[in-house]
Amino acid sequence: MIISIQGQKGSFHHIAADRVSDSYELIERDSFREIFDDIANQRANIGIVAIENSIAGSLSYNYDLLSEYKLPIVGEIFLRISHQLMTLPGTTIEQLDQVWSHPMAIEQCRVFLRKYPHIKIVEKEDTAGSARIIAEENRRDTAAIAGKLAAELYGLEILAENIETDPNNYTRFLLFGDNGVQDLSSGKEFRTSLYVGISHKSGSLVDFLNTLRDHEINMSKIESRPRTGEPWHYDFYLDVIGSVTPETHPRLFKELENKSTFLHILGAYPIIYSEFHS
Amino acid sequence: MIISIQGQKGSFHHIAADRVSDSYELIERDSFREIFDDIANQRANIGIVAIENSIAGSLSYNYDLLSEYKLPIVGEIFLRISHQLMTLPGTTIEQLDQVWSHPMAIEQCRVFLRKYPHIKIVEKEDTAGSARIIAEENRRDTAAIAGKLAAELYGLEILAENIETDPNNYTRFLLFGDNGVQDLSSGKEFRTSLYVGISHKSGSLVDFLNTLRDHEINMSKIESRPRTGEPWHYDFYLDVIGSVTPETHPRLFKELENKSTFLHILGAYPIIYSEFHS
Repeated sequence: MIISIQGQKGSFHHIAADRVSDSYELIERDSFREIFDDIANQRANIGIVAIENSIAGSLSYNYDLLSEYKLPIVGEIFLRISHQLMTLPGTTIEQLDQVWSHPMAIEQCRVFLRKYPHIKIVEKEDTAGSARIIAEENRRDTAAIAGKLAAELYGLEILAENIETDPNNYTRFLLFGDNGVQDLSSGKEFRTSLYVGISHKSGSLVDFLNTLRDHEINMSKIESRPRTGEPWHYDFYLDVIGSVTPETHPRLFKELENKSTFLHILGAYPIIYSEFHS
Repeated sequence: MIISIQGQKGSFHHIAADRVSDSYELIERDSFREIFDDIANQRANIGIVAIENSIAGSLSYNYDLLSEYKLPIVGEIFLRISHQLMTLPGTTIEQLDQVWSHPMAIEQCRVFLRKYPHIKIVEKEDTAGSARIIAEENRRDTAAIAGKLAAELYGLEILAENIETDPNNYTRFLLFGDNGVQDLSSGKEFRTSLYVGISHKSGSLVDFLNTLRDHEINMSKIESRPRTGEPWHYDFYLDVIGSVTPETHPRLFKELENKSTFLHILGAYPIIYSEFHS
């Protein structure tokens, strides 16, 4: 199995990949678009893409890639995002001049970092990549903020554990690709993602949502994105609970099609793995 | 009148400020949060904040500031975003080594920039700020991408006009603060923005939206944002057409309050100025 992720070995995307398979080949990519390209061109079996963080919200650009590529979503993974301050072994916090990480990780550790005003904060492209460079360049004056796996992989020591301000920090990842995850899905909860165009007439959105309710379909999320070329009109991404397809719900889909200008089923997929328990 | 904006003289926020008043004092700020602080602390009469671009979508961080500060929205402005390639007078495109601008402006001019692969693209914090530095440092090898006003203010020449890929490029700005814009509002269309908490029970959102429809209130936008501390639960920002307040619609608001866990009216405000015509 080949899994394509955005980011480097030791990143949260890598941790998500480890939840899909014990034995696979990893492709590390710089951008999210490359993940979609890898799946579209069959260079990988599974692509993993963060879609939403419980604090920062949706990754809008990735929603746009969803609708552009329309690749089937085959599963989802929820990870608890926990940040570790890591250094070369034996380094003390007093020796540190700089801390490197991705801007979102830095933002999520602000309260901790404020206690050490002598440490300069430097934004980098990647959490795990920061850890890797510190190890490779043997930088004794620099710490990285990254996940536990990065410390293990690059031989760094965790100087301060779980330094994120808000522990309610989870990221939802979507899996794209072939049916390689089907064997992980037995007995799992399912979700279905729809991408929907609603006419400009007033009340059209609520009409669509009422149809879902009439069929006792529960919505877990609604996300709006601007429609290209038509300012101030929106298309919608809807997540509903369960596996809801024209095969299982033919009458529902007939009605929904009458209440939308287009309707794409992005996937009906299992929750492969979750560290979130409400 | 004192108007506080994010960005520098010549930025699109500055162009928006010019639509509010012919004679005012401008405060230039680095961050959006400072605009809200200026209004909360009465250091300015009006604050102007971009909330949404018709191509890139909503500025999520600014939505979070809306709900954190709950300052009254007193007006909105729609500007056509048109990008100009500008240089010191007499510079030719062949002489250019670099082009500077804000990442979003660069992204919106990709098709144009692809025609000149010899020019290195450098991301800067600001469109107008890029123009200013090129003028101040007399950089003959560098162009900026910014709005027309920046070229005028910093004495640059427009080498290529309207280089944005998609002409359907508009930004919506919200105005906060005191009633200094009231005299601009006569005969104008109004909009009302609501910030709403919906219970986790299934069907609660559609219940709320049905109430609006029953009262013949038309929604122009719905935006969801994660609720702090409660992963995968959302609060909603709703824009509706018209001035819709408990004074004008007492029965509606009584019903809406029963169908929400909280309900804030962020403002009922006029469209002060618009370059968008549908």
